[in-house]
Amino acid sequence: MWSDLGVSMISIDGVEGLGEIVPGDDLAAQIADLYPLVDGDIVVVTSKIVSKAESCQVELADVIPSEFATTWAAQWEKDPRVVEVVLRESRRIVRQIGPVLITETHHGFVCANSGVDQSSSGAKDRALVLPKDADASARLIRSGFEARGLNIAVVISDTFGRPWREGQTDIAIGVAGIHPMRSYIGEVDPHGHEFRVQELCVVDELAAAAELVKGNTSRIPVAVIRGYEWTADDAASMAPVLRDTSRDLFR
Amino acid sequence: MWSDLGVSMISIDGVEGLGEIVPGDDLAAQIADLYPLVDGDIVVVTSKIVSKAESCQVELADVIPSEFATTWAAQWEKDPRVVEVVLRESRRIVRQIGPVLITETHHGFVCANSGVDQSSSGAKDRALVLPKDADASARLIRSGFEARGLNIAVVISDTFGRPWREGQTDIAIGVAGIHPMRSYIGEVDPHGHEFRVQELCVVDELAAAAELVKGNTSRIPVAVIRGYEWTADDAASMAPVLRDTSRDLFR
Repeated sequence: MWSDLGVSMISIDGVEGLGEIVPGDDLAAQIADLYPLVDGDIVVVTSKIVSKAESCQVELADVIPSEFATTWAAQWEKDPRVVEVVLRESRRIVRQIGPVLITETHHGFVCANSGVDQSSSGAKDRALVLPKDADASARLIRSGFEARGLNIAVVISDTFGRPWREGQTDIAIGVAGIHPMRSYIGEVDPHGHEFRVQELCVVDELAAAAELVKGNTSRIPVAVIRGYEWTADDAASMAPVLRDTSRDLFR
Repeated sequence: MWSDLGVSMISIDGVEGLGEIVPGDDLAAQIADLYPLVDGDIVVVTSKIVSKAESCQVELADVIPSEFATTWAAQWEKDPRVVEVVLRESRRIVRQIGPVLITETHHGFVCANSGVDQSSSGAKDRALVLPKDADASARLIRSGFEARGLNIAVVISDTFGRPWREGQTDIAIGVAGIHPMRSYIGEVDPHGHEFRVQELCVVDELAAAAELVKGNTSRIPVAVIRGYEWTADDAASMAPVLRDTSRDLFR
């Protein structure tokens, strides 16, 4: 019915039935087996299952916290080993105020606690860290779909906070096949005016859209977005999204 | 076909056929006439058409720029009258570095140039400003749908930049009928782990999702999101999204 209404329609659907992901799992195969993907679909994968498949987890028993981590953890009743992992995953602390630790990860993402996640690790004495190179993770999943004859864009998403606004949203941390931006530079709108908007970060919008089905249905970790005409880019990466320090006013 | 795959599916569709909006236009009536809305739909309206319907535009010929606006505009080859409008629309300048002016609007939004938009105003000597109270704008549109017997959530969106990441995304600046947040506090995931995520700002995610159809199809200003189970809130507003200065690390 909906498809009669306009050519512009986009659908977002959750991939149901994925089990607990373990190291070495082939995510592309599992997703393709569960969901009838078609050429042009965009698959948005929550980073935590990528981290699990890639063994991006740290056994806390193996972590010896630094004095800095120990002192600060004691002050705010945190696990010093988790704090140590957060510091190791960061290249710079952006803000450390009260119990809040905002870091810049080795990838260049600015987020709380370097994206380190203890609750989702599946065990209390284990911490999940972000994929080492989420663009490479996305490319691996995309190539798994390609091996099945499918041209699928892949976005790896995570849930980040942001300044000025409460509540978190899902954003992209890795991409494959799809250019992260949609540029309007030099274009005019239907009324002949030049666009004020220069570039939209569509992969962040796709990640946000995907969260709507993931969150609604018991945190399903994979969503399929169909009907969005993405800009193909075989060399796609998150690099165009990462603002250079020289252009940033809030570091 | 898609609907067979899962109960979780969400659709996003652009409302095509809206003409140029002029002051006094009844947006709810125009949208409802063009699109067969059903109970539970979420209508995401781009703020610029709300501004036009509500005459939130300033004739630049009537603007006498302050000395501060004139001096700074000259330095960066800007129109001093537009700079004056930007200053009037702000309650505080957050950053003023080079040609960039990041302000906090009277509503409490932090964005470039107080959201003032010259290109979309429809005339070179006119500037479009954000709706005075976008929650009230959303409520007005929602009540127009209610008068037709429809229970529709309304989100007013705008396109904002953000720190640390290049590219803009659409976010919410006004809401009606829908609570802006989805809280996971105290909930556990299917594997029994407590959620790391506390609260998701779903109205920002809905605005981002809507942009995907708006941008794809000649900047259609209204999108309909169907299939998302929103949290009803008759007293909904953007207030829960605006982070209090005392909790903000980046002002």
